[in-house]
Formats: sequence, C-alpha cells, structure tokens
Amino acid sequence: MVRIVLGVEYAGDMFEGWQAQRHGRTVQDVLERAVSSIAGERVKTQVAGRTDTGVHATAQVTHFDTTAVRPMSAWVRGVNTHLPPSVVVRWAREVDETFHARFLAYERTYRYILFNSPTRPAILAGKVGWFHVPLDETLMADAATRLIGTHDFSAFRAAACQAKSPIKVMRDARVTRVGQYIAFDFRASAFLHHMVRNLVGALVYVGKGHYPPAWIEALLQTRDRVRAAPTFEPAGLYLCGVSYPPNWSLPGDGRIIALPQLPLL
Amino acid sequence: MVRIVLGVEYAGDMFEGWQAQRHGRTVQDVLERAVSSIAGERVKTQVAGRTDTGVHATAQVTHFDTTAVRPMSAWVRGVNTHLPPSVVVRWAREVDETFHARFLAYERTYRYILFNSPTRPAILAGKVGWFHVPLDETLMADAATRLIGTHDFSAFRAAACQAKSPIKVMRDARVTRVGQYIAFDFRASAFLHHMVRNLVGALVYVGKGHYPPAWIEALLQTRDRVRAAPTFEPAGLYLCGVSYPPNWSLPGDGRIIALPQLPLL
Repeated sequence: MVRIVLGVEYAGDMFEGWQAQRHGRTVQDVLERAVSSIAGERVKTQVAGRTDTGVHATAQVTHFDTTAVRPMSAWVRGVNTHLPPSVVVRWAREVDETFHARFLAYERTYRYILFNSPTRPAILAGKVGWFHVPLDETLMADAATRLIGTHDFSAFRAAACQAKSPIKVMRDARVTRVGQYIAFDFRASAFLHHMVRNLVGALVYVGKGHYPPAWIEALLQTRDRVRAAPTFEPAGLYLCGVSYPPNWSLPGDGRIIALPQLPLL
Repeated sequence: MVRIVLGVEYAGDMFEGWQAQRHGRTVQDVLERAVSSIAGERVKTQVAGRTDTGVHATAQVTHFDTTAVRPMSAWVRGVNTHLPPSVVVRWAREVDETFHARFLAYERTYRYILFNSPTRPAILAGKVGWFHVPLDETLMADAATRLIGTHDFSAFRAAACQAKSPIKVMRDARVTRVGQYIAFDFRASAFLHHMVRNLVGALVYVGKGHYPPAWIEALLQTRDRVRAAPTFEPAGLYLCGVSYPPNWSLPGDGRIIALPQLPLL
C-alpha cells in the first residue's frame, strides 16, 4: 500500500462543492473516479480543505492510499485524461503513511477577487465577485491589517460552522487593486465556514465609506455574526495554498505563497 | 431614428461566434434579442469585428438604429438584464448616422493569452490557450517586432479568408510573460481570418527553439500559408480594442490600449 498526494486545481462554478454526494457532481466524485480508473481499484481521497459550491482552488491538496504501483506521471497525466476540463492534477508525490492532507496542514491561503465596475463581469462570470460602487482599497487595506493576530472570529462565522473553536491565527491579510480588480488575500492557521466571504463583506462596507477601518476591530470584539456585513458570493473565492511542515517538501504548498498575475483584459 | 453605439464584452466559448445564425446561439442573436426587448421593436446590429466561435471580446463595438427614445442607461443596464451572464454591455453612446462600427474602425487590437505549463488550465479552461513545452518569451518578442510595418500577411491567412487584400499595417506586436502566462499583443489596421492564431503558432515555433526569430521574416516573404505553423486554438484569443477617429470620442475605443492585469493565481 502506498500513499499518494496530489495538488489539484478546479473551477468551483462547475461543481457542487468538493465533498462527494450521491448525485456525483462534486470535485471529489470526478477525481475519485479518475484516480480509480488509473489505479484499477476503488480509491477514496482525504482533502486539505472542503470547498463550497462555486469556490475555486488553485492549490487544493488531497491524498489517497492504493495498492497500485504506478509512475508519478500516471497520477498526473494519466488521471488528467480522465478528468473534465474544469479540474486538473498539477503534481503528485509519494509519501509515507504518517502524512495526512487535512490534519498536517498548518496554514491555508485564500484569495478573493472582486470586479469593481459599474457593470458586471462577463468573460470571468462565475470566476470573480462583483461590486458596482467604487471602493477605496487603501481604507480596506488599513482595515485588513487589523485582522492580523490571534482572534475570536465568531463575528465572521456561518451559523452552520462545525469548527471546534472560533479562535484562529490570522498571519497575513492584504487588499490590493489591479485596475478594476481588487484582491483580498488571507493567510491563517485555519478558516471558519464562510469566514473569507464574510470578511470581504465587512471590508467592502469600509471600502465604500460606510464605516471607518477601526470598525473591523469593533466587529471582531462583538463576536456576533448578526452585527456583521453580508456574505459575499462564492464566485470570487480561491483556495490558493495549503502549508505543510517543510520536511514533506511538497511542491507549491503555500509556505511560499506565489500568486503570479494573469494578463487579462 | 437614432443611432446607438455599444461597447460589449463576451466570453466566446459560450457562443457559436458573433454572426447571427438560424439556431440563435451567437452573440449577435442574444444581443439583438436583448436590445429589441428594450427598444420595443426589432433591432439589427452592425459590428466592428466578427469573431469566430470560442474567440472572446473585451471591447467589441456594435451599432444599431432605432426609433425608440431611451436614456443611455436603458441601453446599458436595461439591456444587461436581458443578457446571459457571459455577455455584458459596458457603455452606450448616441451618434449621428455617419458613424459605422465596421467601416470607420481604423485599427484593432487583439491579445492572445497562452498558459505555458506542463499541465493544462482548469479554472481558465476555454479562456486561455495552452502549450506544454517551456517557451522563451525573449526570442518570441524579438520575432514579433519583425512583423511591425506594412506587409503581405498571406503566410498567416486562412484559406477561407474573404479580405480583399492580404496587405495590412502592423502597428505594434509584443510578447510578454507574467508567471506561467504569455501574452501576445497585436495592433493593426485590420486582420486576416485566423491571422492572430496563425501568428501565435509561428511565434511558438520560435519560442521552443525550433527556428530563430529571423524565420518570421522569411515566412512573411513566402506569402505561403503551407510553410507556416499550426493555427492555435481560439480559447486564448481576445478582441481588446477597436479604434475610431478621435472626433467620435468613444469610451475605451482602443486609441489608448489599456490592458490592465487581473490578479489571478
């Protein structure tokens, strides 16, 4: 039996979330079918972060056990031939049985991309969020830095959240504008359910001048979701990195967060 | 009767080209239906550049005549409510009857975006081309500058091309890399059918070291499509700008080519 780790990219708007469902229209469903085809046996995956319907991943990490002996290229190029256009395996590594994609991940990076324009996106429909009123990214960047540190993030937690504790360590939080696009980058030990989409909702209140940047600190202190801003749509959300201890030497695992820019429009 | 000009963005992979067809699945079909709904009468559009199936536009320009009297916001926000997510009207202007979207356009700008990675795109499937072998963008940029000037572009012309003359003025041709993405930018008086996709095919031959940059000049001089490289897939191609004489004062009409960068992965 060997344990294989995969780095996976997918367009979340083409699936009903990560987690396998009876209907079979999730990322886990299509990935397990493709991997099983190459393995010649039924394979079950474990994942770093279960993403909701509509949420994308550039660097999801998942592992599985198999008795099949295959070159690593079979777990990349071979599996890719069995996947639809909206999912791709970027890399594969063999690890020992002490590795676990979820339990060993000590940090995750999410990026939310907002198209800030009077009219909605078209080419990138489903791939970016949209807000029509001009936003001040300097105010939002100021507010975002106030999230850095160890905090109780209950004010940004979904009602359905199953996390044991609302206390998380936010290691970095940035807001940058590139033309009509605004990127919200968050790096933390872990995230509560809907946390990034709720944070973006609150930062947008600051960006349109409704509240000053210090309001974010007051909001954190309420630990009350009711006072917070709306949950933003999933279209703009990307899981961009998952970090593991360096001894695992996984490629692009988020310890160094590389978010190069795509030259579009 | 008034003449209205629209700036339109669309995802070409969601349509069977620009030009209206009996089946109704083209950009022109859905746009004319939406505009006609707002006008309350049947409206026919004229367009700056008919794009093929799979080819995108960030700044297509189209005009129509109508007896309907509406505020410009109706031709933008009103029409947008009748369009699918993959098309959007960005702006509308009233012009006099001497304007024509196709005949007055003196320059077009196209960008081809190539994902240069061992594995295919997933999030941007249908939105970027793909080439798996590493390409040298410096060699390709060198080759591209040799296309600038007035040339007979027959070597890069599709067999079905209906242009009267193969002689076009290439005003700018650039190749730039941003991470794993390579952008090929072309600005010319007009383009032959498949010209950009054929130019990219030839430049990729140079980028992978198969021919030196000077080969592009030799290829131009053959005026023979048979000697040239393969036509690249439409997924990476964007019509990014159409230029009109400055007296028309159209917004973002390509006289100043603004290609800001989208912060994506």
